[in-house]
Amino acid sequence: MIGRLNHVAIAVPDLDAAIATYRDTLGGEVSAIEPQAEHGVNTVFVTLPNTKIELLGALGENSPIAKFLERNPEGGIHHLCYEVEDILAARDRLLAAGARVLGSGEPRLGAHGKPVLFLHPKDFLGTLVELEQA
Amino acid sequence: MIGRLNHVAIAVPDLDAAIATYRDTLGGEVSAIEPQAEHGVNTVFVTLPNTKIELLGALGENSPIAKFLERNPEGGIHHLCYEVEDILAARDRLLAAGARVLGSGEPRLGAHGKPVLFLHPKDFLGTLVELEQA
Repeated sequence: MIGRLNHVAIAVPDLDAAIATYRDTLGGEVSAIEPQAEHGVNTVFVTLPNTKIELLGALGENSPIAKFLERNPEGGIHHLCYEVEDILAARDRLLAAGARVLGSGEPRLGAHGKPVLFLHPKDFLGTLVELEQA
Repeated sequence: MIGRLNHVAIAVPDLDAAIATYRDTLGGEVSAIEPQAEHGVNTVFVTLPNTKIELLGALGENSPIAKFLERNPEGGIHHLCYEVEDILAARDRLLAAGARVLGSGEPRLGAHGKPVLFLHPKDFLGTLVELEQA
């Protein structure tokens, strides 16, 4: 069912410093900051030959990554995103297996403009998993 | 400098349960368990179209992931591994930039039989980074 690893998301307290780390220290190909007001984050993409790293900074007072950053003040890996061919079929398979889908269970448009769902970390080895329609 | 994302490593308390999660629930292509006695871990690889997920279980009394699992009893993402063309040149560039390389600073053979180094999480956004000679 799961296909490509679309991205690994790293939440960071200081996006400019994170850009410097990935661009200057690690020599990666780093995008400009893209505000995603409707998701409460600023995003930066590091393009690797086979996948992407998504650097996430908090945007606004109710950012969904604010609590994570309180617990991880230096930053940390926030989630993994796997592509699936059919997100509704994937959701139904997961629910049938007893896994928990976060929120209403209805896909919403993610940062790439494609339908996404998030899965409960307790059902996936302590990792927050995003599924994105390929 | 950094090239492909070679793998994302997830440390887990129960490798059989983790295999079931990735094979049965998520429908991934999952290898058999490969003991890596010299590294103190059992490994399982989930082959995705563009990269791999490495599931790590503790092996032996002094496993290097034992403390991580104490802090994260349900498991969690342990490290990211980036490929580099020349690991000694990469190390020297990182040291010149003030980043910390763990251990002696000399590459050792990793789970794939290639030279690897680990970088200090405090210098890389709270994430443990492995570099592997491509």
